[in-house]
Amino acid sequence: MTAKAKKGVILSGMRPTGKLHLGNLFGALENWVRLQEDYHCFFCIVDWHALTTAYENPADVQKNSDEMLLDWLSCGIDPEKAVIFRQSDVKEHAELHLLLSMLTPLSWLERVPTYKEQQQQLTGRNLSTYGFLGYPLLQAADILIYKADVVPVGEDQAPHIEFTREVARRFNYLYEKNIFPEPATMLNKYKVVPGIDNRKMSKSYDNIIEISLAPQEIPARVRRMITDPGRIRKDDPGNPLVCSIYAFHSIFSPEELEKTAAACRKGEIGCVECKNNLAAVMQQHLEPFYLQRRALEESPGKLQEILAAGRKKAQAIARETMEEVRSAMGLASY
Amino acid sequence: MTAKAKKGVILSGMRPTGKLHLGNLFGALENWVRLQEDYHCFFCIVDWHALTTAYENPADVQKNSDEMLLDWLSCGIDPEKAVIFRQSDVKEHAELHLLLSMLTPLSWLERVPTYKEQQQQLTGRNLSTYGFLGYPLLQAADILIYKADVVPVGEDQAPHIEFTREVARRFNYLYEKNIFPEPATMLNKYKVVPGIDNRKMSKSYDNIIEISLAPQEIPARVRRMITDPGRIRKDDPGNPLVCSIYAFHSIFSPEELEKTAAACRKGEIGCVECKNNLAAVMQQHLEPFYLQRRALEESPGKLQEILAAGRKKAQAIARETMEEVRSAMGLASY
Repeated sequence: MTAKAKKGVILSGMRPTGKLHLGNLFGALENWVRLQEDYHCFFCIVDWHALTTAYENPADVQKNSDEMLLDWLSCGIDPEKAVIFRQSDVKEHAELHLLLSMLTPLSWLERVPTYKEQQQQLTGRNLSTYGFLGYPLLQAADILIYKADVVPVGEDQAPHIEFTREVARRFNYLYEKNIFPEPATMLNKYKVVPGIDNRKMSKSYDNIIEISLAPQEIPARVRRMITDPGRIRKDDPGNPLVCSIYAFHSIFSPEELEKTAAACRKGEIGCVECKNNLAAVMQQHLEPFYLQRRALEESPGKLQEILAAGRKKAQAIARETMEEVRSAMGLASY
Repeated sequence: MTAKAKKGVILSGMRPTGKLHLGNLFGALENWVRLQEDYHCFFCIVDWHALTTAYENPADVQKNSDEMLLDWLSCGIDPEKAVIFRQSDVKEHAELHLLLSMLTPLSWLERVPTYKEQQQQLTGRNLSTYGFLGYPLLQAADILIYKADVVPVGEDQAPHIEFTREVARRFNYLYEKNIFPEPATMLNKYKVVPGIDNRKMSKSYDNIIEISLAPQEIPARVRRMITDPGRIRKDDPGNPLVCSIYAFHSIFSPEELEKTAAACRKGEIGCVECKNNLAAVMQQHLEPFYLQRRALEESPGKLQEILAAGRKKAQAIARETMEEVRSAMGLASY
């Protein structure tokens, strides 16, 4: 932590699904890197949450956690500035989840919009489990145990933060203590990142670009991107708005964007050249992440060190909160 | 633990509701005192369970835990023979409960008979909570974390042990590990203890006799017992089967029972004399418990010492089990 007074406490987490891609980078990690300067940030690898959907085949959760942590660190998440830790390392999350379960109406959980949505989307997996229903409550425990003031989330997760506020209010009301602040929702200002096929970037579409992609592999990935299908010859006028390359230029070279669009519309630049330009700026942008990742991979004890240090910091806060919680609920702390 | 080879592991728990009464003594504690000789017994003060119904006003949970522990010890539950501990002291129960929640179908919990029954009975309290629905799963975690072979319960709790077996099977099947034995149900062979008004002994009927009742207070409590209302004069013939005194004689002086019944039926003994006889044998039976309790009350650090020692023993086993569980589920143990 820097000595500078920070604005408040932030908690955010990601499910460990393995190597992250540019959607994760521009959707969340870029924000996190900024937020760690101004807030007391807790960044949590929520491996227990991964089990709500992956319980039938959890073999990769641990490997995925490490891969994700490598991506976080290579993008600039800094263990000196933020508390980086693994959810399952801080058992107090499970204890708070259990205690909050006593006072949380079932109907509140049944009403959370993601509950029925995800059950419909993730067909082929049995998600009618007690844990899946309780997943927003575990998220509430993750947030409240650090008394987070602000939670940066995507729009789809906003109802979970609303739910967390309801749980906090109910706890504070029942035990006449003002233990939990009601966390505010901070909607991520993210850039829309298309996949290389112009659909949303997503592992399940096989259209991603990993944050950890080696610079020399970037040109091949860029070549697979879909450009304006109406453009046959390189001097045909193109429509940048239906072109993946253009969407990526808007992220990686915004200062050149108008020039690029004009040249495309006039047929002054061919798609191959335009792709080469994009590959070059992407290499420039992503290479530092790649090099940082390689350096981390070469010091294998480093990740465990960072997790151990983060765990200790997180535990210290979580334990303090739990003493207050137990005392409010009439339970002993040994 | 004695060095003698024991038959297996037993887990049993009681909700801390304060001072116990003779229903608890003859319904469970007498069995426990016997079982601790032959099994590795874990006796658990299930204070988290108390919160499933008492969450709105939990102020007494801790005091009730201490009172209950005093009763256990005064009746002969022996910290040298059994592991005596408080559920909330072993956070691993919450962790296992959370992990099991991921793989437990909601429908299994909704089908547990006590779920709807208790909701109907305990009106005036809001029991439609996530924690109340999950209470049998917490019980399953309590049992499985010590790999209990046998669980002594009353008949009403038998479906919970069946549920625990289902959860154990599902876990072992999903992760292809034989971590959890399926615990057998041991139905308590208990003596039916009526209250002093001949209804079932229960705090809510205000008809109990506390285990900790002072010997000098026993005669007054016995005098309030209801005898055969058809008997007006002391030499009228009586019907022992409708008499509370007789029911208590069957517990406290079984060897005299036939003689007592015969004398009653012939009108040879009056109710007052019969009550005096009962009070005397009850005093004889309960006085050692009372004296033991007084001795414990006079060494205030003793309870905490016993709980600390029990916690350490329980934690050691629970932590071993959790390492196996985490490894089976692909999670890290630090």
